[in-house]
Amino acid sequence: MTFRVHVRVIPRPGLLDPQGQAVEHALGSLGFGGVRDVRVGKAIELGIEAATPAEAEAAARRMCERLLANPVTEDFVVAVDA
Amino acid sequence: MTFRVHVRVIPRPGLLDPQGQAVEHALGSLGFGGVRDVRVGKAIELGIEAATPAEAEAAARRMCERLLANPVTEDFVVAVDA
Repeated sequence: MTFRVHVRVIPRPGLLDPQGQAVEHALGSLGFGGVRDVRVGKAIELGIEAATPAEAEAAARRMCERLLANPVTEDFVVAVDA
Repeated sequence: MTFRVHVRVIPRPGLLDPQGQAVEHALGSLGFGGVRDVRVGKAIELGIEAATPAEAEAAARRMCERLLANPVTEDFVVAVDA
């Protein structure tokens, strides 16, 4: 069966994130106070053919390691829809 | 207190997503079979000062409507860390 998998790829803590800083600044300009530590990365959704949710998640992790994330600069989180 | 809020902004179903198509194609070239309907969007993490998780979520939704998402072409999902 096909599982819907959600991947978030986010710049690692401590690394400069100019896009996050730009969003934080823009939110302040729009009047949204109390916003800090904004990080902007990629959200990827995939349909993955697998026998179990665990298998789909493992496949997605391998895809992150091979293609979707840069292991030097980015962390990733994988979640499978029930 | 400050809540950690995760936002996913994804191209709406039916809209062309060239980046998603490129990722789908690249995954196939790397030998990952059984992958379909890949969508690529933005993942945004924010620290939001609020009294309750519900208040932080409501603030993040307003930020999506004002700045983070394009309501014509993108859907968004907001989640607050416990």
